[in-house]
Amino acid sequence: MARFYKKRDESRGLAPGSLVFIGEKKTDQIRIRLLDYDGSELQEETLQSVAKGADFAKTQTVTWINVDGLHDTKQIKEIGKIFDLHPLLMEDILNTGQRPKMEEFDNYLFIVLKMLRYDEERQMIAAEQLSMVLGPTFLLTFQERPGDVFEPVRERIRKRKGRVRVSGVDYLAYALLDTVVDNYIYVVERVGEKIEDLEDRVLSDPDPSVISEINALKREMAFMRKSTRPAREAITMLSKLDSELIRDQTRPFLKDLLDIVSGASEAIDTYRDMLSDQLNIYNSIVANRMNDIMKVLTIFAAIFIPLTFIAGIYGTNFEYLPELHFKYSYFYFWGVLVAVAVGMLYFFRRKGWL
Amino acid sequence: MARFYKKRDESRGLAPGSLVFIGEKKTDQIRIRLLDYDGSELQEETLQSVAKGADFAKTQTVTWINVDGLHDTKQIKEIGKIFDLHPLLMEDILNTGQRPKMEEFDNYLFIVLKMLRYDEERQMIAAEQLSMVLGPTFLLTFQERPGDVFEPVRERIRKRKGRVRVSGVDYLAYALLDTVVDNYIYVVERVGEKIEDLEDRVLSDPDPSVISEINALKREMAFMRKSTRPAREAITMLSKLDSELIRDQTRPFLKDLLDIVSGASEAIDTYRDMLSDQLNIYNSIVANRMNDIMKVLTIFAAIFIPLTFIAGIYGTNFEYLPELHFKYSYFYFWGVLVAVAVGMLYFFRRKGWL
Amino acid sequence: MARFYKKRDESRGLAPGSLVFIGEKKTDQIRIRLLDYDGSELQEETLQSVAKGADFAKTQTVTWINVDGLHDTKQIKEIGKIFDLHPLLMEDILNTGQRPKMEEFDNYLFIVLKMLRYDEERQMIAAEQLSMVLGPTFLLTFQERPGDVFEPVRERIRKRKGRVRVSGVDYLAYALLDTVVDNYIYVVERVGEKIEDLEDRVLSDPDPSVISEINALKREMAFMRKSTRPAREAITMLSKLDSELIRDQTRPFLKDLLDIVSGASEAIDTYRDMLSDQLNIYNSIVANRMNDIMKVLTIFAAIFIPLTFIAGIYGTNFEYLPELHFKYSYFYFWGVLVAVAVGMLYFFRRKGWL
Amino acid sequence: MARFYKKRDESRGLAPGSLVFIGEKKTDQIRIRLLDYDGSELQEETLQSVAKGADFAKTQTVTWINVDGLHDTKQIKEIGKIFDLHPLLMEDILNTGQRPKMEEFDNYLFIVLKMLRYDEERQMIAAEQLSMVLGPTFLLTFQERPGDVFEPVRERIRKRKGRVRVSGVDYLAYALLDTVVDNYIYVVERVGEKIEDLEDRVLSDPDPSVISEINALKREMAFMRKSTRPAREAITMLSKLDSELIRDQTRPFLKDLLDIVSGASEAIDTYRDMLSDQLNIYNSIVANRMNDIMKVLTIFAAIFIPLTFIAGIYGTNFEYLPELHFKYSYFYFWGVLVAVAVGMLYFFRRKGWL
Amino acid sequence: MARFYKKRDESRGLAPGSLVFIGEKKTDQIRIRLLDYDGSELQEETLQSVAKGADFAKTQTVTWINVDGLHDTKQIKEIGKIFDLHPLLMEDILNTGQRPKMEEFDNYLFIVLKMLRYDEERQMIAAEQLSMVLGPTFLLTFQERPGDVFEPVRERIRKRKGRVRVSGVDYLAYALLDTVVDNYIYVVERVGEKIEDLEDRVLSDPDPSVISEINALKREMAFMRKSTRPAREAITMLSKLDSELIRDQTRPFLKDLLDIVSGASEAIDTYRDMLSDQLNIYNSIVANRMNDIMKVLTIFAAIFIPLTFIAGIYGTNFEYLPELHFKYSYFYFWGVLVAVAVGMLYFFRRKGWL
Repeated sequence: MARFYKKRDESRGLAPGSLVFIGEKKTDQIRIRLLDYDGSELQEETLQSVAKGADFAKTQTVTWINVDGLHDTKQIKEIGKIFDLHPLLMEDILNTGQRPKMEEFDNYLFIVLKMLRYDEERQMIAAEQLSMVLGPTFLLTFQERPGDVFEPVRERIRKRKGRVRVSGVDYLAYALLDTVVDNYIYVVERVGEKIEDLEDRVLSDPDPSVISEINALKREMAFMRKSTRPAREAITMLSKLDSELIRDQTRPFLKDLLDIVSGASEAIDTYRDMLSDQLNIYNSIVANRMNDIMKVLTIFAAIFIPLTFIAGIYGTNFEYLPELHFKYSYFYFWGVLVAVAVGMLYFFRRKGWL
Repeated sequence: MARFYKKRDESRGLAPGSLVFIGEKKTDQIRIRLLDYDGSELQEETLQSVAKGADFAKTQTVTWINVDGLHDTKQIKEIGKIFDLHPLLMEDILNTGQRPKMEEFDNYLFIVLKMLRYDEERQMIAAEQLSMVLGPTFLLTFQERPGDVFEPVRERIRKRKGRVRVSGVDYLAYALLDTVVDNYIYVVERVGEKIEDLEDRVLSDPDPSVISEINALKREMAFMRKSTRPAREAITMLSKLDSELIRDQTRPFLKDLLDIVSGASEAIDTYRDMLSDQLNIYNSIVANRMNDIMKVLTIFAAIFIPLTFIAGIYGTNFEYLPELHFKYSYFYFWGVLVAVAVGMLYFFRRKGWL
Repeated sequence: MARFYKKRDESRGLAPGSLVFIGEKKTDQIRIRLLDYDGSELQEETLQSVAKGADFAKTQTVTWINVDGLHDTKQIKEIGKIFDLHPLLMEDILNTGQRPKMEEFDNYLFIVLKMLRYDEERQMIAAEQLSMVLGPTFLLTFQERPGDVFEPVRERIRKRKGRVRVSGVDYLAYALLDTVVDNYIYVVERVGEKIEDLEDRVLSDPDPSVISEINALKREMAFMRKSTRPAREAITMLSKLDSELIRDQTRPFLKDLLDIVSGASEAIDTYRDMLSDQLNIYNSIVANRMNDIMKVLTIFAAIFIPLTFIAGIYGTNFEYLPELHFKYSYFYFWGVLVAVAVGMLYFFRRKGWL
Repeated sequence: MARFYKKRDESRGLAPGSLVFIGEKKTDQIRIRLLDYDGSELQEETLQSVAKGADFAKTQTVTWINVDGLHDTKQIKEIGKIFDLHPLLMEDILNTGQRPKMEEFDNYLFIVLKMLRYDEERQMIAAEQLSMVLGPTFLLTFQERPGDVFEPVRERIRKRKGRVRVSGVDYLAYALLDTVVDNYIYVVERVGEKIEDLEDRVLSDPDPSVISEINALKREMAFMRKSTRPAREAITMLSKLDSELIRDQTRPFLKDLLDIVSGASEAIDTYRDMLSDQLNIYNSIVANRMNDIMKVLTIFAAIFIPLTFIAGIYGTNFEYLPELHFKYSYFYFWGVLVAVAVGMLYFFRRKGWL
Repeated sequence: MARFYKKRDESRGLAPGSLVFIGEKKTDQIRIRLLDYDGSELQEETLQSVAKGADFAKTQTVTWINVDGLHDTKQIKEIGKIFDLHPLLMEDILNTGQRPKMEEFDNYLFIVLKMLRYDEERQMIAAEQLSMVLGPTFLLTFQERPGDVFEPVRERIRKRKGRVRVSGVDYLAYALLDTVVDNYIYVVERVGEKIEDLEDRVLSDPDPSVISEINALKREMAFMRKSTRPAREAITMLSKLDSELIRDQTRPFLKDLLDIVSGASEAIDTYRDMLSDQLNIYNSIVANRMNDIMKVLTIFAAIFIPLTFIAGIYGTNFEYLPELHFKYSYFYFWGVLVAVAVGMLYFFRRKGWL
């Protein structure tokens, strides 16, 4: 099954902007949660219908509507209608194989990123798509499944920790992106640790299992890069964006975000190089071992084959074979054997094989 | 036969702008189909001569003339004359080895792309050239062979589905490009699936056939990249074009197109890297196997060659060979054999070969 | 002998602008041909002295002076004086190791390109330098040897075919460049065909000769790239040049030229990658074969060496060797031999070597 | 343990701008040193509290406050408050895994670099983070541990050597950066020397230990590049910065800094290539040795196995075996043996193996 | 010893701008030569003190002061004082490990390049640093050792050959740079020739010595690139510089210079690729040879080991071994031997090994 590139079979031939959910259904029930706050007030609710959220969005307070689960296209469509979102944007939200990007529309910004998570059990990185629509007073976020990755931000809002309660909706968007991007670091670091550990195994006493591990780690790195490289582009664009939706005091934070993604991106490249180096090193070690094996074989063969030949000569049944009848022949014979063996050993020692 | 670079022998030495069909003749009969519509009216016809189409093109309605088959240069030439197309453009339409590109002329845009299709039978990607001339009220499309790839778009036009009936000719061009580009995704994904499947075979129990498969897949990727990379350039130019022929409301759609081609392009690069990695992994596994084979050989040789030598000594016919006459010699002899064998086994175990 | 980088020993220490012919003398006699035309008149002549050509150049008609052979520096120098060409330009014309380029001078453009030709006999690409000076009403071209590569253009001029007779001197320059660049395609395609053919040989039953063929083709590709890459730069500059010497109606033709060179350049890169892949594939196949050889050896050795040892034991001459005297011993002996052989075969089959 | 990418576990889920020390605690006690000077006066002090330093900073004299040790977040926080530093900047100072960068804030510049040091004992490069805040009249520097790397600069200030006493605070910042960057050169040169020395060992008589050395040196180079590449970016930005904080007469010095970092960066890349080449060369040498080993084996086997076979024939006990009874048979037998051996030797000599 | 990156130990911890000579002392005596000329007058002198040269520099004539030898820092310092040169510039002149560059100061340009020379004896490229200070009427050049590389330019000045006597000081600078850069070509070409010659040896009958030669040539290429790449940058900057110090009529000459360096740079890259290819080709050939060796071994072993086994059987001393007593047994025995041998040969021929 193609993990790196998702099938879009379902939408082939459809009109652009047709809303079809493309992806795995990762949750049963779609859930819409609302958080509406300003410096003084805070309201938190789970919505049955998004229409009510729209009323909140019209006020000057910060309104954050988070949608968990994308398979219920009808509800998603309704959100699109209420917030007057571009059909292509709606299509992108539903297509979980979307490439990370940032797009500017007339009244809002659209950001798609991948949330990465290291699945310890399957030893694989799992990706989930996060779409964001940032309007003047509202923020819509769409996730594939319910999860508590944004819970710390909610907590900070509820407890008035940090500057999120006293800043605008753009800062809220930043705070969420920061959470996403912080996880990149964690995942890179988690896989990087494995790579650095693998190095010792490669150098000390590598067995063939390192090959498949190197391969697996390379794939994870490729998988991660698929998310972080366009994310870097998107965040660069975001931090340089000349739009009223991004306040000046939020910009340094976005630049900081960019630093983090850049660092993660560079670390991924470094680790990729390291894995290639490890495979090369492993191959060199295997070749060296082969040399060792062959040396042992050659030394044994080169010593004993001539000896066996000599013994063979005196095992022949020629009627007239003078040496057989000399007294002490047998001891001379041993002398010759020892001499040949010592000669060979000396030859191999001079060759540096012993 | 050169699949990657087509012969242009036929046109060597000709004046630039000479109209010669370069390619394989893929259909017998050239077919010209017309579709003329606005929000309310729709007319569909198969034309005998293109002259009639020109009348439609002059009206404000959207006029789409599609030509299947390029070998009838006379008719193609006539189209060029009627629509006043630049001779170089005409030459490009007829040369099916044309590199994808977008060019701006005074009154129209010229776009060349490759349509890709995965030929399941021959396990190869097949390419067909699509040329487009986008004028203010008309769209000319030229295909190498009749095919139903644009049928869904026609269907949407007929059934007034989506926004194509209510948008201009630039949206129609977009809708067709979208169909083309959607197929890129499908093809990348189809080949990518094979690559990801191959990986398991490489890792588990690779036989030499994987080499030729890796090679075949690499070629397909190279073949695809030859089409998608310049297509990406062309669509980038198109989406940034400052021309009246592209309406503002169509631009987001073109950007979306760019996203798709970029995604496909990056996936191709990722898969290419993966194939190179697979070959490296395969080579490492082969080297490992060699080590295994050599170990078996060396262990057998190193154990039995000395034993055979010892047996050979007591097979000699020396008259005076004291050991032969001792009682129990034979059992001591076996003792020595066993001791040597055990010694060798111990030696190899300590070396970690057993 | 250095084919990739020509000796400039002859000019070391000379003042810049000193005119020394650097290259192989490829023709005996320098030949100067003049073609002067406008829409109505045409004059064709072989000149003894270039002075007469200068008179033609002053008129409004298009004047094309073609020089075959560069070794007669005195005549070349005279041309430089008559047309008031910059000494550096003159030096470049004479140095056949010049890198392709486009340079703008006050009253003329200077273009250097390589003409490529596939020498079927020596299986090598041959390069010849073409220098062009494009003035307002005249075009000077300098070739290393007489050749008929421009004959089709002359023919078109004589027979008023195409637009060359009715266009200016810039179109003439384009027409010649087009001829040069068309040959790039032919050469790339010719060598590319060999590369694609080689692939089958590499995959089916490669013998060591493919190594030197891959190497030879790689060199040809490197040789070609040396000419096409700077040519691409030069033509890009030419097509974007803001100069009165290039008329607006000629620009689309120059862009077309750029497409062709770009396509050739990309094809060269693709073929280079393909050759590297082929070498890798070849190496994998060789490694696989080695495994096969070693398996055969190991199977033979591992089966027969123990058997020989057993036979050796019963070939010893111990006085007291009970088995020798049992009846049926010989048949038991055979039983053991067969059992060992079957055991080994079973062992190798389980290892998957049989 | 991940050396290339530091864990930021501690800060996961925290609000951006939360001050947490991320890194190893490398010193027990935080130490704050002040140096305040102009052309005539000089004051040097170890501060208990940073508040006093703030008073100095307000005067027109150059005030340099250096903090050794970062684990005491309370004091660091206080510095931030007193100098009104951006919370993100504060976070960066405390996170020792920060990527080198230069950032412009309203009233000051923020520079993060890595100080590199070659730890001769552990044969590894050690990195320490240096953060700098450059204000109009003050410079804050933060190091992870106390060290005397800046002592020479202090000495120059005290003894009025060089231009540091008569220049502004930007020159002081430059002087410190120069010290840091000078160490890059030293470290590159130290590791480079090892690489160039290794080359001789690889070529003359390589043993398997070179593999792990190549690997170790590659890692050091990757580690170094991680610091120097972003440092190059940061210093490029600094040298081009349009800010009143950088005086015109300081700019040439910053450009000089850029030269040094660029040189170090390029040297790192060259050395990396060299290491890859060394591994390739080593592998070729190993393959050659394998050939030598196999030749010895093959020559011995091919000579003695047939000889042994011949001896074996005359060791058979067939009742009717005529040759055994001929007189001189034994000598003919030796003749055959010698002839076979000489034939084989001739065969191998003709093959070029002897 | 580090050839690729020079120790700057001597200057560590010194104030920037401190004048320390870093490099090898390549001459005993510093020598200062003056050449002062205009179209009509010419004065040539060896100066004891540079002060006198300063008087010349103030006049409108072209004044060229050339310094051979850099170890006498006192005199160099004096020159700096007299011509009012920036301390950093002075430091760069003395540091012979300086990276090639072009820097613009208020009243003069500073250019550093490497002069390359192929040392035929040591088979290595030797580099010498050339620093140039180009003022409005004077040119200062600093070399590490006296040499006659600029003698031809002096000769042209003396003999009024070329345009150097009638052009300004910028042309003189160009003429010297041209001399330097011409040597790049010569060196590239010299090493390139060796590389192209090596290719034949690699392909025909490579012995292990090619490995170290490939390595040596790769190092020379890396060494050269270290000088030419930044030289290309420097000359690009110089040719685009908007400064009164460079007259318009000199610009085409600088562009020509750029062409030459670019050509040399590209040739270096091509040769580097070629060397990598050669190593790959060599490795393939070695692997092929290994296959040949193993085939010989396997064929011998697989034929004679079974034969020896059969002979061994009839060498056993079983009391009851019926075949031994049949008449003609011996001949049947030979029949079996021949049949086995022929069978094996047939088997190997079918495998394609014979």
